[in-house]
Amino acid sequence: MTGYTEIAYDVADGVATITLDRPDRLNAFTAQMMRELVSAYAEADRDDDVRAVVVTGRGRGFCAGADLGRGGSTFDADDPERAAERADFGTIGGAPRDGGGIASLASAACRKPVIAAINGPAVGIGATMTLPMDIRICSETARFGFVFARRGLVPEAASSWFLPRVVGISQAMEWVATGRVFDAPEALAGRLVSKVLPPDELLPYAYGLAREIADNTSAVSVALSKQMLWSMLGADSPWEAHRVDSAAIAHLGRSADAREGVRSFLEKRPPAYPDTVSKDYPELLDRWPGEQPVS
Amino acid sequence: MTGYTEIAYDVADGVATITLDRPDRLNAFTAQMMRELVSAYAEADRDDDVRAVVVTGRGRGFCAGADLGRGGSTFDADDPERAAERADFGTIGGAPRDGGGIASLASAACRKPVIAAINGPAVGIGATMTLPMDIRICSETARFGFVFARRGLVPEAASSWFLPRVVGISQAMEWVATGRVFDAPEALAGRLVSKVLPPDELLPYAYGLAREIADNTSAVSVALSKQMLWSMLGADSPWEAHRVDSAAIAHLGRSADAREGVRSFLEKRPPAYPDTVSKDYPELLDRWPGEQPVS
Amino acid sequence: MTGYTEIAYDVADGVATITLDRPDRLNAFTAQMMRELVSAYAEADRDDDVRAVVVTGRGRGFCAGADLGRGGSTFDADDPERAAERADFGTIGGAPRDGGGIASLASAACRKPVIAAINGPAVGIGATMTLPMDIRICSETARFGFVFARRGLVPEAASSWFLPRVVGISQAMEWVATGRVFDAPEALAGRLVSKVLPPDELLPYAYGLAREIADNTSAVSVALSKQMLWSMLGADSPWEAHRVDSAAIAHLGRSADAREGVRSFLEKRPPAYPDTVSKDYPELLDRWPGEQPVS
Repeated sequence: MTGYTEIAYDVADGVATITLDRPDRLNAFTAQMMRELVSAYAEADRDDDVRAVVVTGRGRGFCAGADLGRGGSTFDADDPERAAERADFGTIGGAPRDGGGIASLASAACRKPVIAAINGPAVGIGATMTLPMDIRICSETARFGFVFARRGLVPEAASSWFLPRVVGISQAMEWVATGRVFDAPEALAGRLVSKVLPPDELLPYAYGLAREIADNTSAVSVALSKQMLWSMLGADSPWEAHRVDSAAIAHLGRSADAREGVRSFLEKRPPAYPDTVSKDYPELLDRWPGEQPVS
Repeated sequence: MTGYTEIAYDVADGVATITLDRPDRLNAFTAQMMRELVSAYAEADRDDDVRAVVVTGRGRGFCAGADLGRGGSTFDADDPERAAERADFGTIGGAPRDGGGIASLASAACRKPVIAAINGPAVGIGATMTLPMDIRICSETARFGFVFARRGLVPEAASSWFLPRVVGISQAMEWVATGRVFDAPEALAGRLVSKVLPPDELLPYAYGLAREIADNTSAVSVALSKQMLWSMLGADSPWEAHRVDSAAIAHLGRSADAREGVRSFLEKRPPAYPDTVSKDYPELLDRWPGEQPVS
Repeated sequence: MTGYTEIAYDVADGVATITLDRPDRLNAFTAQMMRELVSAYAEADRDDDVRAVVVTGRGRGFCAGADLGRGGSTFDADDPERAAERADFGTIGGAPRDGGGIASLASAACRKPVIAAINGPAVGIGATMTLPMDIRICSETARFGFVFARRGLVPEAASSWFLPRVVGISQAMEWVATGRVFDAPEALAGRLVSKVLPPDELLPYAYGLAREIADNTSAVSVALSKQMLWSMLGADSPWEAHRVDSAAIAHLGRSADAREGVRSFLEKRPPAYPDTVSKDYPELLDRWPGEQPVS
């Protein structure tokens, strides 16, 4: 897919930036934006020049939530316009797939670390789309809201699974049951974000994290680590991890990257890893576990 | 069930208050109190006039734990008095059902958000009964103890499942292995409670949270959200959430509450949701997952 | 097993101390150290004189990670020396079992609480081996690193399962994706450790925790509680806990320890529990859940 119209996608110095790009609408989420996000995450996953992904918003907002341009029928599955926009993403369990979930699961399936740089209001899907991202930081001007119960809806984008795992069940329940909009310090105290920054330091900090990854680590290692950590959230026992990491260590232990990793460390020099995700990623576990039939 | 004797149950302004009511015994837990709690939670679940539940204790204690009036045989399943008190709650896996668990699972099955306003000592079942509640706040005079190992017992009320999910496994292990009684600041630092308040500000703060829910949100949305978040704690993958929330958004998206939620927001006026839990709650998932055969 | 050469194992006053003991190598991990750890944990599990275990490192380090004495082929499963060292621990899923996982799962299977007293750098397996321990505290001089991606590897020792459960998925991903080495305050803020102490206060604090357990609690209660809390991390529903704790309360409620626990409390005197883990531990659940076939 080329010619993005509701996001921008740029790659520089090993880092992809996805910018939600409807600034006149505070980057409100649409079916088109969903489609472009799915494409961009797949592109970042595929491209060996991308070692990390930064997601941010154009203008003063991050994402104000679903575009409510159709008013009271915005979420009505029987609305012909809504149905048409989503038809090619199919159904799950007999229902049209939730658009937020399509975007979130695409983000989760991307094997490059994803850093949310939340520059302003992140409400509804604007908040939940960040939950499968690996690191969340925000500007002092950010605001958050899991406002679904204030719209007659429920948390979407698979956030009933992600949110309690990111912030704990009690914090999740308080934010979801009240539907409250809250500020950056409350997000930090509740561990929704790991850092709050002045607006002009947000992107530099995000790129600093991306550089820390790109300059020091093996791409194959990071890709496989990401899939292991997230998928083991659903495993009943550490023995499942023992099985997977025994296979992974056996496989990677004889890789060129492992030799280079150990040698560069012993020689106290920067590493130059030869392996790439596109060629050398071992398929030792599902990219994302528990995928269910979509029709 | 009417005529509560060991709790009080009151409904006002959309909020039910359950008061543990044996102040001369620091509200120590009995089989009768368990029975009344089960009834009260079911009543709150059923009553559309109840949007949230506040649980607190009469007098200077919240709940001092199991009533030890039978001394060393208090927990002896062969004690005829103990057996008789619990007989009609049946057995699970061949054992008489733990009374704390009966109360805790009844609390968890209540689809209205439950707020623990812990006004004083909460020890043993007094602490574990709060874990399935959605929000826990406490007075500066509260004290807590998972003291089971100091009584030759183990954590009950299904707290081996709830406690690590609420406070993390390491904090859970420290409190359980030492059996230590600890104060409100330690509870806050360990994320067992989200707020510590002067005694006379505790109930006003709890009712403030309840109002925030009652005044702004759809009852059906909150009820379904609560069941989704708690049940997804046991799901192996976000795809399970994607399946459920796709069904939920498809169902609720055409509901009267969703129309009202979006319209009231766009019109910047308070919402007036028409739907009720008793009539409009969609049975999209188990009220409480993994229920096991009781005989 | 007797005659430890790479660890020291001492029991005094009801507490076992395991000291990683290769101070000239910052206690770097070897196959021999793994073997000795497995033996020491089993010994502590078996010995009724041991009520808690403290794990620390000799000298200025805790454990600097895998010994890299074989350079770039350190992790190569085809290396004959590596293969020979691990042969008798078998394979899992067709791969040689990861040595870190063998040590970690042995620690997890020990029914006595394990306290990590991290006295200095804890890197790689030096960090991951502490994750199944029940409490982690550290010296101001400690440093930590989940550096696997900087060596071309992935997190091992079943840490893809343990780490997100101990510190949350977002903190886990940040540490693993960057491979960063970080200091004690960052470990505390990220909830990897619960306390940071001046170097000379570390062991006294650790032994204080061990005493709090040994002096006040039933050994059988603590042993069963540990297994319950960790195994319920993998349970889909609190009903599974309700089944297990109903059985446990029914069993322990008629035990000598429960009688003594309640009586000593009512009589306001220190308890003298008669029961022992070796004789009285009820096998109500797996010592460690989900164990998989090893060949």
